[in-house]
Amino acid sequence: MTAPDRLAEMTTREAADAVARGTVVLIPAGALEQHGPGMVLGTDLVRAEGVVARVAANLAGRVVVGPSIPVGVSPHHMAFPGTVTLTTTTFAAVVREYVTSLHRHGWTRFLVVTGHGGNNATLTAVAQDLLVSHPGIQLAWSPLTSLAGDAVAALDPSPVHGHSGEAETAQMLHLAPHLVHTDRLEPGTTTHDELDDVSRTARHHAQPTLTLPYDRLSANGVLGDPRRATAEDGAAIVKAIVARITAFLEEWPAA
Amino acid sequence: MTAPDRLAEMTTREAADAVARGTVVLIPAGALEQHGPGMVLGTDLVRAEGVVARVAANLAGRVVVGPSIPVGVSPHHMAFPGTVTLTTTTFAAVVREYVTSLHRHGWTRFLVVTGHGGNNATLTAVAQDLLVSHPGIQLAWSPLTSLAGDAVAALDPSPVHGHSGEAETAQMLHLAPHLVHTDRLEPGTTTHDELDDVSRTARHHAQPTLTLPYDRLSANGVLGDPRRATAEDGAAIVKAIVARITAFLEEWPAA
Amino acid sequence: MTAPDRLAEMTTREAADAVARGTVVLIPAGALEQHGPGMVLGTDLVRAEGVVARVAANLAGRVVVGPSIPVGVSPHHMAFPGTVTLTTTTFAAVVREYVTSLHRHGWTRFLVVTGHGGNNATLTAVAQDLLVSHPGIQLAWSPLTSLAGDAVAALDPSPVHGHSGEAETAQMLHLAPHLVHTDRLEPGTTTHDELDDVSRTARHHAQPTLTLPYDRLSANGVLGDPRRATAEDGAAIVKAIVARITAFLEEWPAA
Amino acid sequence: MTAPDRLAEMTTREAADAVARGTVVLIPAGALEQHGPGMVLGTDLVRAEGVVARVAANLAGRVVVGPSIPVGVSPHHMAFPGTVTLTTTTFAAVVREYVTSLHRHGWTRFLVVTGHGGNNATLTAVAQDLLVSHPGIQLAWSPLTSLAGDAVAALDPSPVHGHSGEAETAQMLHLAPHLVHTDRLEPGTTTHDELDDVSRTARHHAQPTLTLPYDRLSANGVLGDPRRATAEDGAAIVKAIVARITAFLEEWPAA
Amino acid sequence: MTAPDRLAEMTTREAADAVARGTVVLIPAGALEQHGPGMVLGTDLVRAEGVVARVAANLAGRVVVGPSIPVGVSPHHMAFPGTVTLTTTTFAAVVREYVTSLHRHGWTRFLVVTGHGGNNATLTAVAQDLLVSHPGIQLAWSPLTSLAGDAVAALDPSPVHGHSGEAETAQMLHLAPHLVHTDRLEPGTTTHDELDDVSRTARHHAQPTLTLPYDRLSANGVLGDPRRATAEDGAAIVKAIVARITAFLEEWPAA
Amino acid sequence: MTAPDRLAEMTTREAADAVARGTVVLIPAGALEQHGPGMVLGTDLVRAEGVVARVAANLAGRVVVGPSIPVGVSPHHMAFPGTVTLTTTTFAAVVREYVTSLHRHGWTRFLVVTGHGGNNATLTAVAQDLLVSHPGIQLAWSPLTSLAGDAVAALDPSPVHGHSGEAETAQMLHLAPHLVHTDRLEPGTTTHDELDDVSRTARHHAQPTLTLPYDRLSANGVLGDPRRATAEDGAAIVKAIVARITAFLEEWPAA
Repeated sequence: MTAPDRLAEMTTREAADAVARGTVVLIPAGALEQHGPGMVLGTDLVRAEGVVARVAANLAGRVVVGPSIPVGVSPHHMAFPGTVTLTTTTFAAVVREYVTSLHRHGWTRFLVVTGHGGNNATLTAVAQDLLVSHPGIQLAWSPLTSLAGDAVAALDPSPVHGHSGEAETAQMLHLAPHLVHTDRLEPGTTTHDELDDVSRTARHHAQPTLTLPYDRLSANGVLGDPRRATAEDGAAIVKAIVARITAFLEEWPAA
Repeated sequence: MTAPDRLAEMTTREAADAVARGTVVLIPAGALEQHGPGMVLGTDLVRAEGVVARVAANLAGRVVVGPSIPVGVSPHHMAFPGTVTLTTTTFAAVVREYVTSLHRHGWTRFLVVTGHGGNNATLTAVAQDLLVSHPGIQLAWSPLTSLAGDAVAALDPSPVHGHSGEAETAQMLHLAPHLVHTDRLEPGTTTHDELDDVSRTARHHAQPTLTLPYDRLSANGVLGDPRRATAEDGAAIVKAIVARITAFLEEWPAA
Repeated sequence: MTAPDRLAEMTTREAADAVARGTVVLIPAGALEQHGPGMVLGTDLVRAEGVVARVAANLAGRVVVGPSIPVGVSPHHMAFPGTVTLTTTTFAAVVREYVTSLHRHGWTRFLVVTGHGGNNATLTAVAQDLLVSHPGIQLAWSPLTSLAGDAVAALDPSPVHGHSGEAETAQMLHLAPHLVHTDRLEPGTTTHDELDDVSRTARHHAQPTLTLPYDRLSANGVLGDPRRATAEDGAAIVKAIVARITAFLEEWPAA
Repeated sequence: MTAPDRLAEMTTREAADAVARGTVVLIPAGALEQHGPGMVLGTDLVRAEGVVARVAANLAGRVVVGPSIPVGVSPHHMAFPGTVTLTTTTFAAVVREYVTSLHRHGWTRFLVVTGHGGNNATLTAVAQDLLVSHPGIQLAWSPLTSLAGDAVAALDPSPVHGHSGEAETAQMLHLAPHLVHTDRLEPGTTTHDELDDVSRTARHHAQPTLTLPYDRLSANGVLGDPRRATAEDGAAIVKAIVARITAFLEEWPAA
Repeated sequence: MTAPDRLAEMTTREAADAVARGTVVLIPAGALEQHGPGMVLGTDLVRAEGVVARVAANLAGRVVVGPSIPVGVSPHHMAFPGTVTLTTTTFAAVVREYVTSLHRHGWTRFLVVTGHGGNNATLTAVAQDLLVSHPGIQLAWSPLTSLAGDAVAALDPSPVHGHSGEAETAQMLHLAPHLVHTDRLEPGTTTHDELDDVSRTARHHAQPTLTLPYDRLSANGVLGDPRRATAEDGAAIVKAIVARITAFLEEWPAA
Repeated sequence: MTAPDRLAEMTTREAADAVARGTVVLIPAGALEQHGPGMVLGTDLVRAEGVVARVAANLAGRVVVGPSIPVGVSPHHMAFPGTVTLTTTTFAAVVREYVTSLHRHGWTRFLVVTGHGGNNATLTAVAQDLLVSHPGIQLAWSPLTSLAGDAVAALDPSPVHGHSGEAETAQMLHLAPHLVHTDRLEPGTTTHDELDDVSRTARHHAQPTLTLPYDRLSANGVLGDPRRATAEDGAAIVKAIVARITAFLEEWPAA
């Protein structure tokens, strides 16, 4: 069966109908980047697509799902084999041309759901530039994990926690357990004492913000202890994320 | 089960192993563009991914499959709703940064398999620029349908034949029949008499080459008569394409 | 008297000495954009420069202050006369070339202190791109008001509060009272009820993030009630900001 | 005497008249690149200009000849002294701005005649981008030698044959014999056995397409045996090319 | 007190009034670059701002002063610590976006006053490009010292004279004596005999023009003998410059 | 016969010899732009090529002549049919890539001789950027008419004089009389009284510099009275230009 909300699985006439219905375009975005010894390079897109599918199910007929953007802004992971990065300029151009193409057909509201935090800044920059160049477009974007603060806190994650750690691994155990090598999961940096001086400064202060390469933050690319993640935790996190994005979309007026 | 040849489903350590094995990176590329009343916007990527999966099966362990590039260069279809186009500059940047990222990890040979002919010129341009900027990279690219000349001829296609016509529809009936609305297939422009003067000039001469928008060539975006396509024809075409690409890869030396 | 920590007021030989001492370069960044009926277009830079001067005084000899970047990314204010905006591409290029020029002379640590939140995303993007192109550079950036959460909360600001509101006006009353026309201060949008549907959605959800033009958010460009600000509040906010940035710089190791 | 069809030799008023007549603009494009020991760096432009002059003579008053573009996309020849290459981005910009400038004066049809195959891909890319940015422009382009398949086959060229080989040398002997050093002509790579493994793969398969530098394909930069070329062969090839381009132009309607 | 002609010190409503009055926007531009052992890196902006302030005082109410551009095109000084350079592309983008932003609010006439000759060429290039992209804008630019030929000649400068020499030092002694370390002023290259062969060629011929790095022209970055400068000379030079710019502005009609 | 100093007429081996001899590369640059009712669009390149040929004859074996750049920066003439303009960005890219290509083969000294003053600023900008990106390159450029001040003054030109006026027409009467329609020469703007207010301001002040479109300066695109030009005047001007450029090249040391 086709998924009737996926743009790639619509004909052009179905697309025209979707415009006429005033749908919002959801765009999953990921990264191809290291996720430690036990998770796969495509982890971020798997999570974004999983969330978008659930949101789309909640809002059947009111959204369409555009093709995923599978590679993103990942310079901080380039020391780890398999990682691909786009410059921020190129990632921005992809998003801008994707969205403005669809705007020519009549869509006005777009939500990029990114499984990768490295894309956030560029998504904001694109939205800013569009305010002047295409005032008829409303471009929103959403992260994943940070929408589920309570569920993540319930995991009681490690003092240093983040990329490929408890919360991210939990989501994967829920969404795509076949892509988690549970036997290979290894803890990464879990305490501030393990960080070198520069990394500790960067982690200590959310702001001022200091961007560092991940090989400096963690020898195996992991922040936190993914062995502590469970699928149940992941289900709770995903549920919270989906609820937040769904609520946003339900509020967002067409005008 | 994971597909062990998909880069997105490898860990970073598996990626390092794949580099060490001297694998070639295969990259499916598509388009999101109109394919007439009966086929879906994502048709080109579906076909590229289908071919790549078969090639990869033939060459297990000797290739890896990178993330697909789902949108391409489709300005000629922009009159039809749902089409997305990147400028040639942006599409080139995506391919270049994708490939050079992986080259930093040690890969040297790349084959982009594009289901969309509108990407061909830009792929050549990227390969040219890399000769100077990254002489250690060998970037090849391949189309689909034109590799299967005999099998297409056996279809006895319409005098005007091409986009969304007999050969392309046949491939989809073989690769993804659930994405073909056979009840909605309609013939497009099938004879030179139906073309306007400019379109006839463009079709009459392969060279000089004149690029025209598809709404000028065909009212419904189709060239040929997709109703005449069969899954058997498609199987023959796909088989020929896969054989040609496999043969190329088997010959391509690592040095 | 010259200010010995300002790069523009050093000779080239003094600059060489500052490199040899391992100084951090502080770069104030602002915007030229509307700040409502009572505050001036240059407000953001005035605040950034005020903070930087105080931080530099705390760390005499350990930092140098580079020339200010007086215009930034302000597309959301372009409906209001006098606003200047750079595209994110151009703002990024300025920061990148500024920083890489100084890196050629030996500096490795840079902190951009931006009085304008519209610059934040681009600063992050620049820092990301530098990880690959110039791994020897550490580029940090800092906002202002969000470093002083407690002091701002103590103001008991309006339910809708932000640009040109209580907290920003307070800072100006402390740092540059001659640039605040207290007799012309007017409340802007102060409650969610005053927002239109789209604006309410955007303000309701910090994430997903929806960037809107300010003329949609507020008729006079103000969020909050600047009449409620006092210089004392501003002093507390500035003190908190300066303390946070100073602490960051004291921790930041040279290596 | 002036050549009345050359734009560079018209006054602005004559140019205005040429627009009013509905002329097509012909643009010769070349390369500055090695052509082996016996032919000159400017060979490609000499051939393009020779063909264009003959086409223009056939269509007097219906075409104008714009200034030649003397350098093109030649990264594959950069190992040989004297070669100049533009990036594909820059070559594209030159063609685009050249054509759009003339479009502002009212011209709508343009034919770039390129003596250098390395320009082909970029010319297609420019034509694609113009479909969206300048839908009023029709940009066609033409190669040379590939228009004369029968005449080239009649030469019975070497098994490996191409750049600076029999067919190209023949054209030069006809068009500009003073620029061929017949005493210095040397055979280059003429058989597949002389190719290394990678080059053989690339030549064996027209598609997939693998672009290689010429110093890998041939020690002296030549493919084929130019000593076998005659001016008579060249006359036949040029005649065929001119006929094909003339026929195209005669068909191309103004609308 | 605020300076009522400084855009940064106006509210958005005052800016709207300034547009309505038909004011010209003056933009001081500088450089951050070496000025020898005795003058500061910011010398060029200090001089530009000093001149602009005097011009604005002459034309009160008829001009507004935009934010200064503090860094410019200084590649020729990059061998000297502290110098920052923008590429010409980036400097051009800053000027273009600055000016076109203000043009959206209604301003049409702009004068960039540059204290740094390295910016001249790019300012001309921006003005050229704007003729096509924004025909409603008139962008003028002015240097400083070359407007005061007689006053400079009266100084009887050294045979080789220029950057950081008599005339520039004199201006600084008049405008900002606290930024001149008179005890550290040292002569630089003062005679043609001290130049190497290439530098002598470049200085001998104003045209053809050969741009050289300053470390080749002078060991300490100075051309001329700054010790011979006096504040009185500087006053005469500044007076002449201000008079010339004022006269230009008085003539420049609004239409 | 071939012209042995033209790069386009050399083989790659001859090019290698020319590098080894330490030759300077001369590059003629022009424009395709209106030159009034009596002179042709390509006038500027004709003059540049004429001068370069004479300089090359003076310095046989010490220079090579690269392909001409036939279109340049001519936005100010776009109101007149037939004019082509490149953006300054594109013209810069062409020059930069042309020169850096040849630098890879070993050339280090380049002189662009431009018959069109609109190219001057961009040529300077390219030379500036190369100081940082390619410090091994020395890029000089030269105008034409301004090198012959005495010879032009001897013409006693009109009070308003310049583009397509006495001095330029005289050069063409000497260099390419067949391209001057003497029967169609018409005076353009010859006195300040004929200028509108803005044009008068721009012409009155060489500095500040205000760039205006030519249709504002002159109804027929001419400044001065070309009917007063003679071939003898042109010979004197060309002789002076050639002497100045030759002298520069004779002085320019290889190191």
